[in-house]
Amino acid sequence: MTILGVESSAVSAGAAVLKDGKIISESYLNVGLTHSETLMTLVDTCLKNAGLTADGIDAFAVSKGPGSFTGIRIGISAVKGMCFGSGKPVYGISTLEAMAYGAAAEDVIICPVMDARCNQVYNALFTFNNKKLTRLCPDRAIKLNELYDEIKNTDKRILLIGDGSDITKKYFEEQNFANFSVFSEIFKFQRACGVAFAAFLRYNEGDSGETGDALQPAYLRLAQAERERQQRSEKK
Amino acid sequence: MTILGVESSAVSAGAAVLKDGKIISESYLNVGLTHSETLMTLVDTCLKNAGLTADGIDAFAVSKGPGSFTGIRIGISAVKGMCFGSGKPVYGISTLEAMAYGAAAEDVIICPVMDARCNQVYNALFTFNNKKLTRLCPDRAIKLNELYDEIKNTDKRILLIGDGSDITKKYFEEQNFANFSVFSEIFKFQRACGVAFAAFLRYNEGDSGETGDALQPAYLRLAQAERERQQRSEKK
Repeated sequence: MTILGVESSAVSAGAAVLKDGKIISESYLNVGLTHSETLMTLVDTCLKNAGLTADGIDAFAVSKGPGSFTGIRIGISAVKGMCFGSGKPVYGISTLEAMAYGAAAEDVIICPVMDARCNQVYNALFTFNNKKLTRLCPDRAIKLNELYDEIKNTDKRILLIGDGSDITKKYFEEQNFANFSVFSEIFKFQRACGVAFAAFLRYNEGDSGETGDALQPAYLRLAQAERERQQRSEKK
Repeated sequence: MTILGVESSAVSAGAAVLKDGKIISESYLNVGLTHSETLMTLVDTCLKNAGLTADGIDAFAVSKGPGSFTGIRIGISAVKGMCFGSGKPVYGISTLEAMAYGAAAEDVIICPVMDARCNQVYNALFTFNNKKLTRLCPDRAIKLNELYDEIKNTDKRILLIGDGSDITKKYFEEQNFANFSVFSEIFKFQRACGVAFAAFLRYNEGDSGETGDALQPAYLRLAQAERERQQRSEKK
């Protein structure tokens, strides 16, 4: 089983190939360039470095959100195109779940956090035991004080991962909360290997994915334009 | 400060560019191909994806061992060549130290393990606090029972990382030792980002690296041919 994973839901972008449970190739980029310019080049170098072509891919995987609206659209569109061209299925993976696989440690609560502005983070909570990730809550946009209220009395240590780690750490420290760690700096940003790995575990559980046509993004929030329209109509 | 890190000391190979403390590009490969065929392609795609050329690199970093003799030689030789061509300095980084940065978590003993055959692992022990890695012992080739004797009474949890994780886990379980975790499966193998990051921290501490000429590998053990010659001369 060979899976091509694609990640472009936030500032970093990447592609990774997983074969029979092992990441065999990965291209990663975090330079502030538009993902629309870089993503397909990353897919291309990731495949070529491994001596593969798109024909060798059995299924695609993509981080479907939460994250940047534009970033998610680019990743979803690229993968829909590859599905259309190849007829192969796709696994739409929660960005937060993919991040959690990177930080999968036992005896902690894995707490991926993406900066969602306005003192909010995109977040979910997970535990990891016996090579299995367990989700403790759905993906959500949550205020830092609400997240803090939720986790402050846990006996397990909180492991922060993601580009929201810095603001979350700052908030926790302001509350004199110390029962947390920040995951490795070098794996702080989203990586495609987590996306491919999450899809592989679904495949192992009998999930055969969906068609490119059926794949939908998971924005969690309305786009800014839609929020503004909603506010205007509420004022009327 | 822009650093190009190179990793080829074991089964995986890769290149990573770090700029001002952040990994901005990485190419990673673990397909069993000879590093002599793939390493410079990984360097090339890593630079090109980031819109860089070798001119934009201020310093090089390479994992200097322990690991596979051939793999280490390929990485060291490639980096010596790039230093010669550019006149830029190089940081020779312990493979085990680079691995430890990937798993840098607080409140554990970080225990990178590389399978060194004959029930031995290449290993060192580290802790990580306040963004600083502290080395607890030098790099060594150590038998699993000796490693176990050393860590079995520690009160901190042991965090295994590396391609020796499976054999070490198996040995620990045979001893009914449970105070350990295995680091994330997707970051199990050596990555160049840890090499570049370790070099950056040295640079921050005022270390300006060395010349390509001065760079030396750190094999830890004699090569098989040298071990056999030694055995023959001992028999005489």
